[in-house]
Formats: sequence, structure tokens, C-alpha cells
Amino acid sequence: MEIEFIRALRQRLPQNPQLLVGPGDDAAVLRPDGSIVTCDLLCDGTHFSLATDAPERIGRKALAVNLSDLAAMAAKPLAGFLAVALPRENTAVAEQLLEGMLPLAEKFEVAIAGGDTNVWEGPLVVSITLIGQSPHGPLLRSGAQPGDHLLVTGSLGGSLLGKHFDFTPRVEEALYLQSHYPLHAGIDISDGLARDAARLSEESGCGVAIDLASVPISEAASRMAAEDNGGSPLDRALGDGEDFELLLAVPPSDAAELIAAQPLTTKLTKIGTFVESPGLWQGTDAYRPLAITGYEHGA
Amino acid sequence: MEIEFIRALRQRLPQNPQLLVGPGDDAAVLRPDGSIVTCDLLCDGTHFSLATDAPERIGRKALAVNLSDLAAMAAKPLAGFLAVALPRENTAVAEQLLEGMLPLAEKFEVAIAGGDTNVWEGPLVVSITLIGQSPHGPLLRSGAQPGDHLLVTGSLGGSLLGKHFDFTPRVEEALYLQSHYPLHAGIDISDGLARDAARLSEESGCGVAIDLASVPISEAASRMAAEDNGGSPLDRALGDGEDFELLLAVPPSDAAELIAAQPLTTKLTKIGTFVESPGLWQGTDAYRPLAITGYEHGA
Repeated sequence: MEIEFIRALRQRLPQNPQLLVGPGDDAAVLRPDGSIVTCDLLCDGTHFSLATDAPERIGRKALAVNLSDLAAMAAKPLAGFLAVALPRENTAVAEQLLEGMLPLAEKFEVAIAGGDTNVWEGPLVVSITLIGQSPHGPLLRSGAQPGDHLLVTGSLGGSLLGKHFDFTPRVEEALYLQSHYPLHAGIDISDGLARDAARLSEESGCGVAIDLASVPISEAASRMAAEDNGGSPLDRALGDGEDFELLLAVPPSDAAELIAAQPLTTKLTKIGTFVESPGLWQGTDAYRPLAITGYEHGA
Repeated sequence: MEIEFIRALRQRLPQNPQLLVGPGDDAAVLRPDGSIVTCDLLCDGTHFSLATDAPERIGRKALAVNLSDLAAMAAKPLAGFLAVALPRENTAVAEQLLEGMLPLAEKFEVAIAGGDTNVWEGPLVVSITLIGQSPHGPLLRSGAQPGDHLLVTGSLGGSLLGKHFDFTPRVEEALYLQSHYPLHAGIDISDGLARDAARLSEESGCGVAIDLASVPISEAASRMAAEDNGGSPLDRALGDGEDFELLLAVPPSDAAELIAAQPLTTKLTKIGTFVESPGLWQGTDAYRPLAITGYEHGA
């Protein structure tokens, strides 16, 4: 959700007893039952291009980005609601979207429970709302403490080459980690490592220092850097959006144990430390400011 | 939701243990806690025109149509999620939408709990997902029995003259009726009396006969009929969409009691009877077929 709009929402909305967690985290948490709800809308020309991308991949992505938000809350997804605005000249796309979505829904045991279809003169819009439950309580953005280590799953950057469609949301990883380790905070990387690490620390009321040498850079980031001259592979790992990897704040001894154990099929890397001073920093000892280069959502 | 797409969904989706009620009713009902969820997406040029309608009215309508769906399930709304695609040249519309939405949210004690904002080159799209709970169990479309009376709140037709923006969703009415009378089935009129009455009976596996002389015709329907030459006032009451009144199936003796008591601030009218023979009928004794003239959603 766009930052300014979230701020406006937070200021405007009365404290509502139905909300344990309101706008500003990866998903909302509702009373009385702790339902965790997230909502992501994808537009033609922004998140995909119907002219060049297969509708099945678009449908899959629409569900996957929402699954990633629930992963960031360590929530198990239960039911999804699909709302679409279909271009009048291509209403058949609805079935293809569904076709791409269903295998992922099945894998994560999500019921596509309802929704709304509309036909209009505009381009394709796909909106999904996903409801889940967190077996061990929701993992928030706000729980990181100075001294916690910053851990990341997988490798980063260059998602545009394909991963932004084909990534596997880290739902199983988040559920496993949350049930075996005392995670303090989490977020999924949708707008780039730098921006989302900054968000995680800001919501926790502290800062975070990234050890640039340890950032796991994807092969795609290196390829894009070589092809585009658009910055170094590290720049891409820091600034590219839509990695959909997990960023976690973990107490130091547990983090060390986790890194040694590597209990996931995907690699976990320690890439930084939470610090007292608010802001985004680089270094491992003497910290210097690090620019927030990520994609500004909605801007 | 578009009928064909619902059929496809119903055929394609595996029976899912997380769903008590899946696609096809006014809202879905989730296990284990009975959450009732609905989702409606509104597009510029179809449900409103940003060029001529105040954004505050559009925002209000986006929430109100979802509230009406929960009313049709006799559910109390709890939390709403707002996803928007904002035209790049007018992103300020987001705040105005919210401005129009908040008084209604407050009136019905709905938390705007989160959502997603996007800026794009296309026209405005507003999608809301609303979650509620039904204190006495959900009111489904499928419970009507032959012999039940068909009751309607308010008066019908001509909604385009203003009611489609300014209507009050029948949430309080539905909750009151559901807690005091043994309602068998319910739906809100979004696509016209004829079409939605036919839907209600179809989902219940029976038919319904409408007593045309008893249909409550709104003043707006008469005005539109006079101005447009687009059919009689009754035609408009039967075929115009977006009345957002409640259609209810009620056992005969309770229905008679209800009509006599008139316990709501809005009038309740008996307009027909459910019958064994599937289909939409007219008359009170010898039934003749009645054409389904309502708006076909998404078509």
C-alpha cells in the first residue's frame, strides 16, 4: 500500500477494537479470531503486460504476491477472493487467469471462495484478497530489537527476468521458522531489499545496518547488470523489487543457530544487524548511511 | 459475479473443507469460524463515472454495495479491505474516496483495515472486500421452499436517478429480521427484481411467481419511465438494477405476521410466492412465465 495513503489512513481511522493490527503491516489482523487478511491488486502495464505475458502466469502471480504477504506474517492461507475487471475484447482471459491460479491454490490449500467479475473498456485488473490464520501468532514488522540479526531467504535482484512471475511464496518456510525459532519481525521483499529493510526497522522503532558484502546476489541480478549497464549486481540486489523473499529479525544466538543449521531447502543468509540509530546503514562496525534505492510502491 | 464464471469456478474447484458456502451466494462462508466474506469491484464507466460523479459518492458506493451483500447474508460487517487502481493524473482521488467511505464505515462499525493502492495509466478501479459474522447463522439463497412468501424491502426501479449512490444498505433490517423471524432465504437486488428473484428460486431448487400488481414501484421508476419512454414504471421496477433492497423467502404465517407488524422503518411488501415449478412466473393463481429483464452482471 502506498506509504502516504497508509499514513492518511492511520491518521484518519479511529482506533478500532476489531483490529489487532491495522494498515501498515504486510496484512491486517482481525479480532476476535485472529484472521489475517491481505489484499493486492495488479494492473496491466504495471505488474504485468497482457500483450506479452501469458494470462496463466498473471493469474498465478496475482495469487502468489498475496501468499507472500501472508508468509511475511507467518500465516497459513485459507481462502482467496478474486475480483477482476476484464477488457471487453478479451473476457476469455478470466478462465486463463484461474487456470494459472489453481495449481498454486491447490499447493497451498487455498480455497478460491468467491469474488467479482466485471467487463469494461479498460485494461485488465486483478485483485485478490487472501485470508489466513497464524498458528503461532502473527509475525509483525514491529518486533525487531537492536542487536537482532537480519536474515534473508534465497538470493536477490533481477526478478524482472522471470522470478516475479514464477517465484514460490515463502509460506512453508515462514511457518516452519516461526514454529521452531523465536522470530522477532518479518517482511517480504516486494519493493527491494533496501526499502523493505528500512521499513522493517522503521516499524520496529530502530535502524538496520546491512553488510553489503554478505548480500546474496542472484544470477539474474548479475545478468541484468551486465546487459543493462543499470548499476552493479549489488545495486540490483538492493534496489530491484519483487524478490518476494523473507527478511527476518532474529535474536543473535538463534540467528547463529539458524544459519548453521540451514533447515530450509532455500538458503538463509545473515546480511545485517539491527541497531539503535533509526535509519538504513551499511557496514559491520562503523556504519555509514545507505541510500534507499528500492521501488516506491504506487509512486 | 458473472454467472458463467461462477459455473466454471464451481465445476473447477475441488470441494474445499474450508468453505461452508462457496462461489454463487451473496458472500462466502468460511470454516472454522463462520466468517462471511464478500468482494465487489467497481470500474469507471460501468458503475460510476469519475468525470461526472463526486469521488466521495463513488467511495461510499464501493463500500455500500459490499455492505448490501453482507445484509443479504444477514451478516454483521466487521472489517473492509480497499484496493484501488488510481489514474496517474488524479491520485488525489484516493483520499476523496476514503472521505466518502468513512461515514458509512463508522455508521456500520466497519474497520477499514488495509488494502492496496496502485497508480496506473488506466481509469479508476475500486475493489472492496468485506468480512463479517452472522450472529444467527448465514442467510443463504438456497433455503426457499414452495409456499414461502416473497417479501421485499422498500420500493424498486429508477435507481440510476440517485439511489444507486445514496442507498442505505439493509444491514440493520436483515439482522433484525433474521433474529426475530425464521427467514428461509435472502438476496439483495443488484441486477433487478426479475433476475434476482429468479436467482433466489433457482438456488433453492424451486420457482417463484410474482404478483405484478403488488410490486412497490419507486417514484424514481415512474419519473424515468415518463422521461425515457423506456418501458412502464413496472418494467423499470422489474428490470432496473442496483436497487439494493432485500428479497426474502419467509414461511407463509410468519410472512403474514411480518407484513401486519411492519417492524422496520422501511416498508415490507409481499410480492409473490415460491412455487414447485422451476422458473420465474407472474400471477397469483394461474401462473404465466415472466421474462427475466434484469441487468446481466458482467455481460
